[in-house]
Amino acid sequence: MSLLLRHPVRIEWGDCDAAGIVFYPRFFAMFDAATHALFELALGMKHKLMQSHFDMAGLPMVDTRAKFHAPSSFGDNIIIETRLERFGRSSFDVYHRLLREGDVVGAECWETRVWIARDKADPTRIFGAPIPAEVIVAFRV
Amino acid sequence: MSLLLRHPVRIEWGDCDAAGIVFYPRFFAMFDAATHALFELALGMKHKLMQSHFDMAGLPMVDTRAKFHAPSSFGDNIIIETRLERFGRSSFDVYHRLLREGDVVGAECWETRVWIARDKADPTRIFGAPIPAEVIVAFRV
Amino acid sequence: MSLLLRHPVRIEWGDCDAAGIVFYPRFFAMFDAATHALFELALGMKHKLMQSHFDMAGLPMVDTRAKFHAPSSFGDNIIIETRLERFGRSSFDVYHRLLREGDVVGAECWETRVWIARDKADPTRIFGAPIPAEVIVAFRV
Amino acid sequence: MSLLLRHPVRIEWGDCDAAGIVFYPRFFAMFDAATHALFELALGMKHKLMQSHFDMAGLPMVDTRAKFHAPSSFGDNIIIETRLERFGRSSFDVYHRLLREGDVVGAECWETRVWIARDKADPTRIFGAPIPAEVIVAFRV
Repeated sequence: MSLLLRHPVRIEWGDCDAAGIVFYPRFFAMFDAATHALFELALGMKHKLMQSHFDMAGLPMVDTRAKFHAPSSFGDNIIIETRLERFGRSSFDVYHRLLREGDVVGAECWETRVWIARDKADPTRIFGAPIPAEVIVAFRV
Repeated sequence: MSLLLRHPVRIEWGDCDAAGIVFYPRFFAMFDAATHALFELALGMKHKLMQSHFDMAGLPMVDTRAKFHAPSSFGDNIIIETRLERFGRSSFDVYHRLLREGDVVGAECWETRVWIARDKADPTRIFGAPIPAEVIVAFRV
Repeated sequence: MSLLLRHPVRIEWGDCDAAGIVFYPRFFAMFDAATHALFELALGMKHKLMQSHFDMAGLPMVDTRAKFHAPSSFGDNIIIETRLERFGRSSFDVYHRLLREGDVVGAECWETRVWIARDKADPTRIFGAPIPAEVIVAFRV
Repeated sequence: MSLLLRHPVRIEWGDCDAAGIVFYPRFFAMFDAATHALFELALGMKHKLMQSHFDMAGLPMVDTRAKFHAPSSFGDNIIIETRLERFGRSSFDVYHRLLREGDVVGAECWETRVWIARDKADPTRIFGAPIPAEVIVAFRV
């Protein structure tokens, strides 16, 4: 079993477009925040400390898909449920489920990201690094 | 054959995250702008006129997936190539290809959207409406 | 004395730019959310209900100024303290103070907004409407 | 006389809020892009090259004010006219004027920013550095 984050989000006026519903790129920003929050919950440290502790440079997105089942609008209080689904050598998968009031699933999102490090010789070069065992263990509950 | 849009985008400082590369939700905003620009190119009218002319309320996203092959950074000049791939009754698919200098494919994105109208009796209710033949024809080249 | 809102915000990875600090337009989005939250707190109703209850169309910005005293970075937990400073006939002023840990003032922002309504005859036309007495009273503590 | 940049911007669907007009924090993102573009025009080099050439770490905002005279909406093509108004030792002022069709001034913005460098001993520390003479000269026309 993998750790589950329940990440509350309030939909703001500025998240919505001219149709009065959330401009969908804003949902990706919320999903991104949820993935970062999940790692902080699992590891018990902030992202910045994670970076120095593990010599990690970020968790960039490689592949993401979202399905939008029902729109959200400003003033809505939603919950993003986030779970780590798979660890590979340097990549990992995350799944988000957006719950509206009454636990209606408003959207789902699948992510594949990479754990990256910076080349010591050339800090502008980044590459996929092995995910530390300490990280993988931290997601087990 | 379907109309091809070549949509130029300059990556701005504010599009990038703390790793110095584009924060991927910003790419979705760029893809969204490209889809709107493609409709304007095909129909020869601005989105607002489209709304009144066709009694259409918007083109909300139902399902989208993006793969990120190579990062972009501020100051980069990219081209988003956008093409309509399929028209259904009220849904349609769009494909984007992000080209960096030298025509390197930096990202790809697939979209399924719905052509929606507003209920006359209850304007807060929106529903998938049949895509007008005039629209479908306009994308043929 | 005027009602004070203490609005908590967690600075996300996606709020920060390539220098690793908050991209300042994101602060304006946070201040905007705080102003909306202040009205909801004062009136005890969500913005949407406010719109129908008062026949109000929005609270657009007319003039805003922000001073940034100290940067914030991802993972920071900040508080935005928000207070209504002045009610005019149809305009009003809001003041925000961004507090970092230890109550260090990271930024300040001043806003002048307008209470607008939609023309019944031509709904695309908006105009500054008198702020209802019920609204003004609600901010007194 | 100081160099004048005319920076064209197309207002996108995603720049607008539920009232159908530009969500004002998006204007600050556009002004920020215009300031960066002005420096690139003056110095004939991209921001990244500027950073390495001058050992500069960024141009963070210290104080900014915007007045919004008339709203813009999606599909609008605007011009942001941007001019450098004053160079201090390490701070400088920029003025933006947003022109809508027919040269109607839709908004104005004033900025004070700082030219910053990174501490060699502690790269997490940034400080206001003297603006190089080469930079100041480049803005004269």
